[in-house]
Amino acid sequence: MKAAVWYGKKDVRVMDVPEPPSPKAGWVKVKVEWCGICGSDLHEYLAGPIFIPVDMPHALTGGTAPVILGHEFSGVVTEIGPNVTNVKVGDRVAPDACQVCWECPRCRENRYSLCEKLAFTGLMTDGAFTEYVNVPAYTMYKIPDNMSYEVAALIEPLAVAMHAVRRAPLVQGDTAVVMGAGTIGLATLMCAKAAGASTVYTVEVARARKEYALKAGATAVLDPTEGDVVSRIRELTNGGADVVFECVGSDKTAPVAVELARSAGKVVIVGIFEKASSLNFNALSFTEKEVKGSLAYYGEFGSAIQLVADGRINVEPLITGKIGIEEIVEKGFEELVNRKEENIKILVRPF
Amino acid sequence: MKAAVWYGKKDVRVMDVPEPPSPKAGWVKVKVEWCGICGSDLHEYLAGPIFIPVDMPHALTGGTAPVILGHEFSGVVTEIGPNVTNVKVGDRVAPDACQVCWECPRCRENRYSLCEKLAFTGLMTDGAFTEYVNVPAYTMYKIPDNMSYEVAALIEPLAVAMHAVRRAPLVQGDTAVVMGAGTIGLATLMCAKAAGASTVYTVEVARARKEYALKAGATAVLDPTEGDVVSRIRELTNGGADVVFECVGSDKTAPVAVELARSAGKVVIVGIFEKASSLNFNALSFTEKEVKGSLAYYGEFGSAIQLVADGRINVEPLITGKIGIEEIVEKGFEELVNRKEENIKILVRPF
Ligand SMILES: [Zn+2]
Ligand SMILES: [Zn+2]
Ligand SMILES: [Zn+2]
Ligand SMILES: [Zn+2]
Repeated sequence: MKAAVWYGKKDVRVMDVPEPPSPKAGWVKVKVEWCGICGSDLHEYLAGPIFIPVDMPHALTGGTAPVILGHEFSGVVTEIGPNVTNVKVGDRVAPDACQVCWECPRCRENRYSLCEKLAFTGLMTDGAFTEYVNVPAYTMYKIPDNMSYEVAALIEPLAVAMHAVRRAPLVQGDTAVVMGAGTIGLATLMCAKAAGASTVYTVEVARARKEYALKAGATAVLDPTEGDVVSRIRELTNGGADVVFECVGSDKTAPVAVELARSAGKVVIVGIFEKASSLNFNALSFTEKEVKGSLAYYGEFGSAIQLVADGRINVEPLITGKIGIEEIVEKGFEELVNRKEENIKILVRPF
Repeated sequence: MKAAVWYGKKDVRVMDVPEPPSPKAGWVKVKVEWCGICGSDLHEYLAGPIFIPVDMPHALTGGTAPVILGHEFSGVVTEIGPNVTNVKVGDRVAPDACQVCWECPRCRENRYSLCEKLAFTGLMTDGAFTEYVNVPAYTMYKIPDNMSYEVAALIEPLAVAMHAVRRAPLVQGDTAVVMGAGTIGLATLMCAKAAGASTVYTVEVARARKEYALKAGATAVLDPTEGDVVSRIRELTNGGADVVFECVGSDKTAPVAVELARSAGKVVIVGIFEKASSLNFNALSFTEKEVKGSLAYYGEFGSAIQLVADGRINVEPLITGKIGIEEIVEKGFEELVNRKEENIKILVRPF
């Protein structure tokens, strides 16, 4: 079977690999239907290794690079190992990407994405840019018959966004600001609206992405290159938003996220950062603002599937491209680098 | 009557001022018994104006400097204005220092220390380094007969500490770290213990303050000049503390506070900062830590009085000096500047 394998920075090879063996006890084999390219895949391609283990064997799996990328996927269960009772062969699934120890302090309180030994599928252990992948049965979430596999491949990033909304927590009637209109920013906007936010402002500079945000239901889109976003948001929200989501990951935007929140407001940090920011902590102590990180998800897949199945969230507009696995570097990674604005989610068909 | 009046940086004058008139409707006159010198008084003395209004009349009171300092006080009600029903002449009180509008968004949700028009007694309007002060009746909290006025003057800073513990919120069984062993740090340590924290570590460099912390019940005191506090705390708490309180207000310590917390742990920022810190927001997003500011209090006076009256918190060891108003500059402000380590709370007798 074909697979997209990370060997090093700028060295992702589409090559033939053997199909995985029959799954061991508690594990299942999934035939991948679609798998989305994530920003973190792109980071590993451009600047990796970031999460990929290279020198030390991974604490949970013992594995190291080369590793098959891909973690935003949908598929069908084709084989189950011993002692698997939650799924059966033929089940259509959108798997959680967190493989964890279930023994560390965070796992024991079910905040499993913070597992000390987290092995994220497709980054820290083999993933789904290939035809078959073996994963633990506890990562399985079934999708309804009428949900397409394309849409199901968006459940993983939607769970990230839903987790951020729940982390805040954003409650009905809140005003919100989402910084950034990439996949996670747009999905967060959708989740915030579906959670009952009264108004959701998007902050974004790229023209194409501004349009995506408006289509996804943004009350308005503000462009920091066209005016003072902080004073404008304060005007629009009577002093600042109840909840601000930082979905950009820039050292410049994170402190602005704090400014955009009202006194006693909440800031959720979803982005991944390359550089340190300058922050005067008086921005928190004088105003009692709170800033909290949000990483992946813990258990939001079931709810995410439900909200999409019910039509309360429509993720289809996020899909801006569909390609075959042979094209993953040229029409996937390079396309996302060169035409960042126009592309949101590119799905890969692995066979 | 004598009063300590702030005219400018390094210019606090002890002078005769007229006794305030009879209190207006909803206000009371308090005869001050004791008033503590706060770190913020010292800041105004050394580097003010910080909170004191000088050029613009204050939004709530219309006043500007010169202003009588002093907000950590106890006293007795000597006169009540019309429509005052919550206290009567002769009541012994420990007043809240927040004079507020009760109309802005934060006031309406009772987070009144975040009032848009906050007029803090003794900073933004005349305070209690004098014999008589008029204040709103809603700031009155009665103290029990057997509580000394000296102890009652400590209720205000204790409410600040209790608010920080409630802001976290620190819950029974949590491990905690308090950075700094000044008045607020020590009071936070006491509150954390009284709230059922399993262990409370203090981080402090000054020898005298380390001893105060141990006497106040610190599990251990760690000195950053004597070893790596972050790795030591992680060892002692199995990966980091549940709650960390930053009570120093240094650009260097605030990011360390984040490091001292466990994944998904909480950091409460109580300090006031002079400089911006460098913070990589991955420290929050990768770990789901949360950082929140805590400012003054909203309503904790009643509980603070109760816990002291019950003997569950003993603030008496915090009192390290008692002086007369004539001595406030020499034996108060200058003493606190020159012998920072040895002094915690100096109380001033205003007549
Ligand atoms: Zn992803
Ligand atoms: Zn774990
Ligand atoms: Zn104070
Ligand atoms: Zn107010």
